[in-house]
Amino acid sequence: MPTISKKGQKMPASPIRKLVPYAEEAVKKGKSIYYLNIGQPDIKTPKIALQAVRESNIDVLAYSRSEGSEIYRQKISTYYSKHHINVTHNDIVVTTGGSEALLFAFGSIMDIDDEIIIPEPFYANYNGFSTASGVKVVPVISKIENNFALPPIEEFEKLITPKTKAILICNPGNPTGYLYSKEEIQKLAAIVKKHDLFLIADEVYREFTYDGNTHYSVMQETGLEDHAIMIDSVSKRYSMCGARVGCLVSKNKTLIQTVLKFAQARLSPPTLAQIASEAALETPQSYFNDVIEEYVERRNTLITELQKIEGVKVAKPKGAFYCIAELPVKNSDDFAQWILEHFDVNGETIMVAPAGGFYSTPGVGLNQIRIAYVLKEESLIKAVNILKEALKAYNN
Amino acid sequence: MPTISKKGQKMPASPIRKLVPYAEEAVKKGKSIYYLNIGQPDIKTPKIALQAVRESNIDVLAYSRSEGSEIYRQKISTYYSKHHINVTHNDIVVTTGGSEALLFAFGSIMDIDDEIIIPEPFYANYNGFSTASGVKVVPVISKIENNFALPPIEEFEKLITPKTKAILICNPGNPTGYLYSKEEIQKLAAIVKKHDLFLIADEVYREFTYDGNTHYSVMQETGLEDHAIMIDSVSKRYSMCGARVGCLVSKNKTLIQTVLKFAQARLSPPTLAQIASEAALETPQSYFNDVIEEYVERRNTLITELQKIEGVKVAKPKGAFYCIAELPVKNSDDFAQWILEHFDVNGETIMVAPAGGFYSTPGVGLNQIRIAYVLKEESLIKAVNILKEALKAYNN
Repeated sequence: MPTISKKGQKMPASPIRKLVPYAEEAVKKGKSIYYLNIGQPDIKTPKIALQAVRESNIDVLAYSRSEGSEIYRQKISTYYSKHHINVTHNDIVVTTGGSEALLFAFGSIMDIDDEIIIPEPFYANYNGFSTASGVKVVPVISKIENNFALPPIEEFEKLITPKTKAILICNPGNPTGYLYSKEEIQKLAAIVKKHDLFLIADEVYREFTYDGNTHYSVMQETGLEDHAIMIDSVSKRYSMCGARVGCLVSKNKTLIQTVLKFAQARLSPPTLAQIASEAALETPQSYFNDVIEEYVERRNTLITELQKIEGVKVAKPKGAFYCIAELPVKNSDDFAQWILEHFDVNGETIMVAPAGGFYSTPGVGLNQIRIAYVLKEESLIKAVNILKEALKAYNN
Repeated sequence: MPTISKKGQKMPASPIRKLVPYAEEAVKKGKSIYYLNIGQPDIKTPKIALQAVRESNIDVLAYSRSEGSEIYRQKISTYYSKHHINVTHNDIVVTTGGSEALLFAFGSIMDIDDEIIIPEPFYANYNGFSTASGVKVVPVISKIENNFALPPIEEFEKLITPKTKAILICNPGNPTGYLYSKEEIQKLAAIVKKHDLFLIADEVYREFTYDGNTHYSVMQETGLEDHAIMIDSVSKRYSMCGARVGCLVSKNKTLIQTVLKFAQARLSPPTLAQIASEAALETPQSYFNDVIEEYVERRNTLITELQKIEGVKVAKPKGAFYCIAELPVKNSDDFAQWILEHFDVNGETIMVAPAGGFYSTPGVGLNQIRIAYVLKEESLIKAVNILKEALKAYNN
């Protein structure tokens, strides 16, 4: 029997997927589940995007250019200019989702055993991309007590070695909902310039900022041109997760040329989804206003309801649509599984994401869960009530 | 300035893309070009596939399952059964094109500096995927004199080291058009079993076999279940290159579980394209009959015309839609560029793929080109005439 690679053995299983069999079993038993575990919004995709695909008159579904169609990239750069990000279409490589953009970035700047510093908790798949790329995640812990703000910059300094190639942030953050301030971005800018590192910013939740806070992109920071790599995607912005269209943006020309070689090897990003994504750029501002209003209400409801539960600590998100909650349990993996297996309120139960998978440091975050507020308010209220009752039952 | 990775520096530029600026320049000068250089067929995508996308009534373009939707995988397994390949949907992971299937296979079975033996000339992007995966291609030369048949199995034996993890074939072959016989597959099966290797077969051109020859899949070979990995794609079969839907198929359960972890990290293959791909499976056999008839005519015309040119040697393809031609020139890179820069017949010129990029051994294949017969017969005749005249002019 031929052997699996060490890399393949090390690839982390999705922390969310581990619970899927238990959820399927619960459904089989006739329970209905509130899915708080995944970042699949229930928000409708802008009609204009889906309509463009329905009306397209292509008769050969051909490759697009490896870097994405020129017209689409030009339109993306126009979109960015509205967000005070000044780039041309030549600074953009269209990718198959933000996932591929991250893989191309990792491949272009890191070799085997190189290191990337990431504030944790972080988007769990950063672990998968790092393992697939043969590189090492060096975590720096951000804390629920500080709302998951940027850890002191000295904490980063301590971790930098000759193998460190980049710092990666997600802004606004999945799973924390934290929005970095301009000052925090500038602190990161200073340290990457000082140590000649890249600063990768996953900004796929750019639009989702609340309470009058505005997003400050790494691409807005003067003097960071050679260091900044922005990861983006249409997935969350337009509720088009299944499109699989993202992009990598940088003003570092050598980097873009390198990324392009990775892009050429896989030929082309998906053509149909690029048609949808190009049309989606015409989505009116009113769509986002409505969506953001909806998320703010959901967040407020969720946080209010969570804070009512004794022993639950929660960070108030300023962006994205996730929050981390600390529970009065020892092991949220066990608790999340237990709920699916043994608990319901009138036949309804919940699925949450245990937060351990969002940390790289072993043993940290074991009493936390991530909740995605991608459900309607009414459902969120019911779901939090189930959580409350489940905690009572589990702790007895 | 932060540095690019060694891997990124080593990533090969696409051998076809190098000529693009010269082609663009030629077009600017008002020349029209016959593109013989790329595998983008002019054949129409089955209407049923595009219609399914137009008629889809989704309102949230959501993630699909990481391994592809269950119904689509079930339908693929039914399609395979018609080709005497007996697999279930659990043996299939849907990928973003054959490209991603190869990357997942490489990542799942090889670590840094591991080796993969590939008969050359081979599909140029195998080099890119190998570099991206940090593994080494060990080429074994197949020869135009033998129509690019499988090299003697002793040649493979000689190259096997403790680092060898797999043999990779493309069947029918890009760029050779060679179709491996059942006996050749069985020889490969014996050697991978003997040395505990994987046998990866890129079978994306399965349907395109000519002259009454039938395709024999690695998945048909009894006793090879733990070793065989099949790569597939809808790109060529249905002329849907831009869909970016492929799959990896294997009966080795440990392998599939490992591949699934790579698939989960990138979340989902493209949803719209899966709708098209699922519908494409209903394409009537008459579509393939027409397409194959068309390719056979094109191939016959191309080969006949090429053989008329003095000093040109050509292997007759039994499958796919490429052929390698040996030209009376020293360096086909230079020749291909020279044509675009300096040669036309009544304002028409040609773009061909220099074959050096399809070899891994330095200096081999420099006098060869790959021609994709993806143009109508009339255009092929004109294009070969331009090649003939260009050879005369270039050699004077």
